[in-house]
Formats: sequence, C-alpha cells, structure tokens
Amino acid sequence: MTKIFNDPSEFSDDQLAGFVDLYADRLREVPGGVVALRSGDPQVAVVVGGGSGHYPAFAGLVGPGFATGAVVGNIFTSPSAAQVYSVAKASDQGRGVILTFGNYAGDNMNFGLAARQLNDEGIGTRIVVITDDIASAAEEHQRRGIAGDFTVFKAMGAAAAAGLDLNEVERVGHAANDATRTLGVAFSGCTMPGAHEPLFTVPEGHLGLGLGIHGEPGIRDEPLPTAHELAQTLVTSVLEHAPSNGGDRIGVILNGLGTTKYEELFLLWGAIAPLLRERGYHIIDPEVGELVTSLDMGGCSLTLFWLTDELETYWTADAYTPAYRKQQVPLQGLISSTEDTAAPGAVDPQQVPTAGRASKELAENVLAGLRTVHGTLKNHESELGDIDAIAGDGDHGRGMVKGATAALNAAEEVHGAAGAGWLLRTAGRAWAARAGGTSGVLWGAALEAAGRTLSDETDAFDRQDLVQATGNFTRAIQDLGGASVGDKTLLDALVPFTDELRSSLQQATGPLDAWRAAAETATRQAAATAELTPKVGRARPLAEKSLGTPDAGATSMALILTALGQDAEVFTNHAVKEETKR
Amino acid sequence: MTKIFNDPSEFSDDQLAGFVDLYADRLREVPGGVVALRSGDPQVAVVVGGGSGHYPAFAGLVGPGFATGAVVGNIFTSPSAAQVYSVAKASDQGRGVILTFGNYAGDNMNFGLAARQLNDEGIGTRIVVITDDIASAAEEHQRRGIAGDFTVFKAMGAAAAAGLDLNEVERVGHAANDATRTLGVAFSGCTMPGAHEPLFTVPEGHLGLGLGIHGEPGIRDEPLPTAHELAQTLVTSVLEHAPSNGGDRIGVILNGLGTTKYEELFLLWGAIAPLLRERGYHIIDPEVGELVTSLDMGGCSLTLFWLTDELETYWTADAYTPAYRKQQVPLQGLISSTEDTAAPGAVDPQQVPTAGRASKELAENVLAGLRTVHGTLKNHESELGDIDAIAGDGDHGRGMVKGATAALNAAEEVHGAAGAGWLLRTAGRAWAARAGGTSGVLWGAALEAAGRTLSDETDAFDRQDLVQATGNFTRAIQDLGGASVGDKTLLDALVPFTDELRSSLQQATGPLDAWRAAAETATRQAAATAELTPKVGRARPLAEKSLGTPDAGATSMALILTALGQDAEVFTNHAVKEETKR
Repeated sequence: MTKIFNDPSEFSDDQLAGFVDLYADRLREVPGGVVALRSGDPQVAVVVGGGSGHYPAFAGLVGPGFATGAVVGNIFTSPSAAQVYSVAKASDQGRGVILTFGNYAGDNMNFGLAARQLNDEGIGTRIVVITDDIASAAEEHQRRGIAGDFTVFKAMGAAAAAGLDLNEVERVGHAANDATRTLGVAFSGCTMPGAHEPLFTVPEGHLGLGLGIHGEPGIRDEPLPTAHELAQTLVTSVLEHAPSNGGDRIGVILNGLGTTKYEELFLLWGAIAPLLRERGYHIIDPEVGELVTSLDMGGCSLTLFWLTDELETYWTADAYTPAYRKQQVPLQGLISSTEDTAAPGAVDPQQVPTAGRASKELAENVLAGLRTVHGTLKNHESELGDIDAIAGDGDHGRGMVKGATAALNAAEEVHGAAGAGWLLRTAGRAWAARAGGTSGVLWGAALEAAGRTLSDETDAFDRQDLVQATGNFTRAIQDLGGASVGDKTLLDALVPFTDELRSSLQQATGPLDAWRAAAETATRQAAATAELTPKVGRARPLAEKSLGTPDAGATSMALILTALGQDAEVFTNHAVKEETKR
Repeated sequence: MTKIFNDPSEFSDDQLAGFVDLYADRLREVPGGVVALRSGDPQVAVVVGGGSGHYPAFAGLVGPGFATGAVVGNIFTSPSAAQVYSVAKASDQGRGVILTFGNYAGDNMNFGLAARQLNDEGIGTRIVVITDDIASAAEEHQRRGIAGDFTVFKAMGAAAAAGLDLNEVERVGHAANDATRTLGVAFSGCTMPGAHEPLFTVPEGHLGLGLGIHGEPGIRDEPLPTAHELAQTLVTSVLEHAPSNGGDRIGVILNGLGTTKYEELFLLWGAIAPLLRERGYHIIDPEVGELVTSLDMGGCSLTLFWLTDELETYWTADAYTPAYRKQQVPLQGLISSTEDTAAPGAVDPQQVPTAGRASKELAENVLAGLRTVHGTLKNHESELGDIDAIAGDGDHGRGMVKGATAALNAAEEVHGAAGAGWLLRTAGRAWAARAGGTSGVLWGAALEAAGRTLSDETDAFDRQDLVQATGNFTRAIQDLGGASVGDKTLLDALVPFTDELRSSLQQATGPLDAWRAAAETATRQAAATAELTPKVGRARPLAEKSLGTPDAGATSMALILTALGQDAEVFTNHAVKEETKR
C-alpha cells in the first residue's frame, strides 16, 4: 500500500521534486517532466512518457544512451499535450524529436496533439507507439504497451546516441516494437496514494493472467502455480506470439511489478532460462528486475525481444540513467583465479573411522534419536515459527527443521559403518553447515561436542557416558553463545535438564526414568521463559513485546527432550543393557 | 506476499541458482555463496554476508569496487561457518580476508568460527561488525546492522580496490561503521516463502518505529505521519545520535524495504534533503532506492554517513555490481543547452481580449457552471474511481477533479476581464494541461471548442448559441477520441443529450426545461452503458469484467449535465433573458 505522501493529489508532483533534487547532476526539471543534460554532439531527441507510478519508467530512464526527456503525468494518467509539448521542445537538439509511449487512448491523443503542434512549428516530430502486450488484443496494433516499452526506448536511445537521423531512429523504434512481445501475471493489486483499498484484488491462491500496468486486473484468474509452472506458461505463451521473422537471438526482460521481489524474480529466472535455451534461443544481456512497475502491485512479466544484428547492437549498448546503468568497461578482462572448494558440510564416507560393535549398535539408538528430533521439529515447525515471530524473525521452526534434516541425512549416510560418536559428530557438522543461523551453529557444535564424548572403540557405555555427553552438549552451547540461565535462551530449558539428569543418574534412577523426569523440568522451565525478557541476541530491543511468550529455542529444546524420552527405540539396547549390567 | 517458489524450503538455493545464471559473466557460484571474477592486481578480499531476503544485500553487491564475495544463508538466517569458510577461501587473493556483516548473534558465531579456522590455516582474516541501527540498543557496539551495512561494505570495497593492505582496509571498515547511523520505520510486515501470514503486522494507519530487516516488528507503533512529519522524525532522530567527531559532509541512504516504492522514496527525499541542508550539511552522492531489503516488507530507513576526506573518496568511488553501478565517466562534461519553457496551461492575464458587457455577464454564468462541475465531481470522486477500477485503472474520479479544479482556478483568474468565450477556452486549456489522461484531453478540447462558439463581442446570446456550443463541445470529443455511440464511452450520454437539447430548443421549449429533460436522457443512457462492452481504450481486453458496470466517463458526464440543470445560477441572467427577448 502506498504510504508516503503529503497531499495525495500532489503525489506525482511531489515525487518528481524529490527525484529532480536527487539527480540534479544529470538532468533538470522542465514544465511537464525532465530533460537529460546533454553530452557530446546534438542528437535526435527520444522523449518517453506516460503516467507516474511506473518507475523506473519513465523519468528514471533519462540519460546518456537512453531517453533524452521524459514527460511525467499524474499517477496512471497520460500527461497533457501541453506537458508533452513542453518536454519535447526542451529536449530538441535541432535534429528532431521521437515521441514514444505505450498504446493507450489518452497517451495517443495527448502525444498526438503535441506532435501536430511541434511539426506545425517546424520541429520534425515522429511517433512510435508500443504494443507489446500479447494478452491485450488479437491484432498487434491494438495491443497495449507494458514492459516492452523498455526494449523499444532502449533501442531508440542507443540509435540516437549513435548519431542516427530522425528517419533512422524512427525506423529502429518500429523495428524494435515489431520484435517485442510481453505477457504478465498479477498476484495482487496496487493502491493509489490516499486510497484505502487496492484498485483490484486477486483471489487468494490465484494469479491474474495478462495484467495491465495501471492496476488493471488480469483478463483471467488462475490457481497460483509453482515457479516452474509459471515459467512454462510465460515462455510458451510469449513464444506462441513470436514475430514471423524472429531469429534465435533474444534479449529478455523478466520484470517485477513492485511487490514481487528480486529473489523471487531470480528464482523464476532460474526456471525460465533453461526453457528458452532448450528451444534453441541464445539469451543476450537478460535483465531481471523492476523496469516498468505499477506502484506496489504484485506480479511480473516476461518480455522477449527478437534481435537482428542492428537491434542487438542497440540492446547491448552502454547506457547510464538514474535507474538503468550498463557499462562494458568494468566487466572487461575479468578472470576467475580461484579453485573450487568442497561443499560445506559434505560427508566423506572414506573418512569414517573403524568402530566397535557396541558403538555401532549404540549408533542405531542415536540414529533413532535423530529421527525423533527431526519428526518432532517437523510437527512443530509452524508453531515454533509463530513463537519466534513475536519478537524475532520467525525463522526458528524452519531453521531447526533444515538443520535436523541435514543431520539425519548425514547420519543415515554413515550409519552401519560409523560408531555412535562419529555418527553424532557427522550429524552435528551437517546441522551447522546446512542450517546456519544461531540455532544451527549452537545445535551443530553441541552435537559435535556430545559425539566427541563417545568413543567409537569402547564396547559398552555406562550412565557416566550419558552424563558426560549431555554435559558436553550443554557446555558447548554455553561457551559458543555466551549466554547464561535467565537470558531467555534455550539454556533456560537445557541447563536445568542437564543438572537434574546428572543428579538422578548419580542416584541410581534408571536412565529412561531419569531422562523423562528431567524433560518434564525442561518443559516447565521453557514455559517459564514467558516471564523473562531477553538479554542477548536480536530479540533484545524487542524485550517488551517478548514478555508473555516463551523463548522459541527453549521451547524447541523442551519438545525434543520430551520426545526423546517418549521414544522407546532411543533408550533400548545399550541404554537398557547398561541398566542390567549395573 | 512472497508468491514465486517451488519448494519453500529450497527458496534460498533456488533464487541463488537463478542469480548466478543471470550474472555468470561477472561472478561464479562457490559452495556457500558467490565470488566476483577478478580484475587487475590481487587485492584484499572483502567478504560480506548474512541471510537471504535482503537483496541487493548481499550477493547483489559483489563486483569491481565493492565486495569480493558474498556468503548466502537461508532466508533471514546466518550462513553456517562452513559456508563462510568456503566463500572466504575462494575469495582470498593472497592478501587476506575481511569478513563483514551486521551484528546478529548467529552471524557473530558463524563468521567468528570461520575466521578462527581461516587464521589457523594462515589466511589473515579480520572481522568488521556493523552496528548502525540507533533504535536497537543504547550502547553502540550492541546495535544491530541494517542499511548501514551498505556504507561500510562500500568503503571497504573501494579501499581494497585502491590496493590498501589488510590492516588498512580493516581500519577503513571500523572508521566507516563508527561514522554510520540509521533509523528505520516499518509500514507492514513481510511473508516468508510458503507462509500465509506475515511475520508481523503494523496496525492500520500506523508505522513501527525502529524496524529490523528480518521481519522483526518496530520497537514502537505510532500513527502514520505525513511525509513531512516522517522526514522530520528520521532526520531529527538520526542527528541526535551523530558521532561526536562528525563533520558537515555526509553520504546519505534513503533505503526502501521492499514494498515501499521508488516514487514514495523520492517524495520522502524531497522532504528530507532540505532538512539536512537547513542544518548546514553538504549531501554527497545520496542514494535513494532499495539497497538492503527485507523481502516484501513495507518501510524505509535513513542512513547518514559522516565523511572524512578519506571516507568520501571511498564513498564516491566507482563500483559495478549486479545491483549497484556507479561510474563517473558517463556524467562528465554534461551540459544543459536548452531554454526554459513556460509552464503548460499557464494563464497569461495580458492576453485576455476585450469583451462586451453581455459576454462578461454570461461569463459569470459560465463560471457558476464551472463551480457546479467542480463541486459535483468532488462529491462523486471516489464513486467514479470505484466504477473505473472495475475494468480500468481507477483514475477517472481523481483525473476529473484535477481537471475541473484547474479549469475553475484558471477561469477565476480571468473572470471580470474575460468574456464567456475566452473564459471557457481558458478553462479548457487549463483542464487539459493539468489533468492529462483521456478524460482531460477530451474535456479540455471540448470546453475550448464550446468557447470558440461564443463570441466575446456580441452583447446577447440566443438559443442558437446554446445549440452550437453544445454541438461543438460534442463534436470535439468525437473528432479527437474517434469513438462512436455504443462504444461505452462518455459519448453514450453526451450525444443523446445534445440531440435532444437541440431538438427541444428548436421547438420553443425554455432552455432550462430543455436542458433538464435532456440531462434526464443522459442519465438514463449513462446507466444503460452497463449493458455494453467497451470497444475502444484500455478497457477493451477487460470487456467481460466491464459488463454490468456503467462507463465511468458517461456517468460523470450525466452527473455534470444533471447538476448544471439543477443549478439556478447557471441559467439566470443571459439564459433567462434570452427567453424573455424571444
């Protein structure tokens, strides 16, 4: 939702004032829009334009190698003929003017009226209308202009910078438009400044196919696809509308509408690029980002630009505008001098040390325990995320699952060959490597420390081993994290557990009973962290909000300790044997 | 809301794969992240990092003049020590490594563990932790790192590119961090891939002061301010925390979190920059845009970077990364060669031609009519916008009000001196110039055409004048717009109105009665457009959605015609006189 403004009706003028202040070193405001400061010889003026709300289009595209001037209308509204005239006149360098814009009724009229007036005054003026949106009409000349504005503007900007005359720049513009096709999808509508409701909504779990860039809804709602399915839809549909004379070299734009973020676009690019290559296309200088937006609308569009040799020259040429900067020089002569390194946390089965029978048997219990840890975390993933989101970043559930999954997978790879100690150390290394984050590094280090307690050679383990393993587990977290009991961390559950377990085991209680009793204490203490305020970590500044909610790390610790105590498999064989042996 | 993904738990890896595919000409993937291809002599490696979800931070900042490598963790989660180690090792060019990241528990631990391992292996490694967020803690070293990551990374990247050694680059990094302060606000939370709810919500009409960049809520909710008030809050608060040795030259970042769009940021910049200049600061190379984001979170932050001569050199130095490109060369030698042009639609009171008494009196009726038009549109602005939003872009109400306001203001400037014809023409020019869009250009042209019908010299007007003025008004719209009756445009109300008015006036009906009857027809016909599908304009591809809703332009036309007929002032004096004269 659009949130920053003073008087909503002045939004367009106010944002332009800030933009002009910011880029005063390279452009200047004229009535109706902005004009780039000139560099070099006079050139044909390429004047782009349309309503506001599409940044970088249109003012953000003014500069060397791109547009000469931009006419800036109100939000989603064609500028007036007088504005177009004013910007065109200020942009003219004596070699004529191209007026270029997307195919909308208001723009056609206003730019058309201005062109007539300019031509009447002897300023040679041509119009290049952009019609790239394949969803908007069957007949090409009736289609709207959306993200394809960018390829056509860029081609003409580069042609003008190369010194071509008015006829030639116009020809390049029409050729670029004829070679450009776009299809978009909308995930959510946009909100005009001052409005409380979006211009349209897309039903939950759906997308609108064939979006407009003025908050127009799509022409058809469809269930939300996966990224792979979306890539397939976009690529297939745009290719169906390929120009009849299109070759196999294409410029590509994957454009974000505003709320669809870079990481999502990169992810989608990872699905689109192979589809294009499979079909034999050579992708030239693809652009993935926000090039023609629609305020805070969610969605994206795929533009293909079929390149001739001439169009490729202009598509790949340098440009330097507020929003779009492309230079060949900094990329020249780059070298890769480094060697590949191994994947972090990768298991090397060759390294598994020989283990005794008892240790291998105990390794089965450890593996069962890791399965229990993993299952417990999967079951509570969203609950743990919700708790963490109260005063943190909500990643606790996901991070723990990621770590536990990596630990379990690594353990399963070595089990059979490895003893209990090695298996735990392998699991710990994998947890830390794959999960990252605070919980990842702490759990990883703790499992490794516990694993180091257990010799892979001994053929039996006693309750002292259990005391030592849990003690080392706990100490590793204390040493690495630097927190104390009472700081509202997982230690508030873990330290009482470890203390009680040690003391029970020293008093002849059976390991399973001792574990269960200690786990109950851990559960109680984890719940009691709700009354604490955090002392360390990123939750610190949000101490107040955190009151009343238990610590996510203490909660997951208590859940895991409880589940381990209730899983008979974990405490069979060696653990029970140890009882009978005693 | 994050919408594009395959398996949400693989989001981070999948987006990185797309990113690496896109920028394969300048960087390469290594286990744990990315490393820039090298250019020139070996330099100190500046390895940045943290969780995903912050693009351009961190992978988007890898390239000449900026970071050497980026470690890429899961969303909002520290990368593991193994990942850091892997990327650092691949980034090292034999001159040592800086590990630099925001101050979070998980990052401190994982980068710390990796640094220990690298140093143990003889790769000189230093750590520079960023602590710019003034809202996160009173003590500087306890603060979080947010958008200030950018200034510190940039300074070290430039210092390394300049050939400085490890000690020196580390010194520059600490100096940059000591000179950087940030405060942010959140408007809305962000949603993790696969989640259905945002990590937090900001109450309607409020903002959260002191945001985190991991979806942490702000530390305090406040009522949503105007842009001016927000600028004041940000500037005042950050300056209160100025470093004790700060001078008057500052780099500035106004950072968008993801959903807060460029135009909003420019608008806010227009309010911030004067406040800084008033206080005597020289703003050096300000950056306004998305530099450190938080998925689709709404909000922004202000970072001030107090520059020494040395830091200014690094802050203004060239850089060329996927997301941040700054080059001095394209901006050198720019000139402004054009003259200023007059503001579009500006009224020049000197130009008002002499008018007769009758025409000046009729001008009062016209002015009253313009007031009625303006008032009617103001009253129905949101209703007209809602109608337009069904299958269009929702700008009809706002555009009409903007045009009518400009027309009324211009008319009021010339009234007293101007005759009815000149007043109408002035109003029409102003409407078209200020409103833009389809309705603006059509209404402007129509008013001008009507104005040209009315001579400023004649001292009385007859019913024939009324017929001619409305006829010309209508024809201007037909000629310019190229639409016909039945195309679902304002002509569906206007043409029947004009026909009926003409026929009634030819049959001795009084002008007021004739007008009212014709306006009733217009209202009926406007309502009947609900059954039509649009034939022209941008609504065409949305024809189906438009069925059942009347055309916004026809609706506003009928409202205006009805209101004019009900406003006695419009038809007094000349209109009534004309009746008696007959």
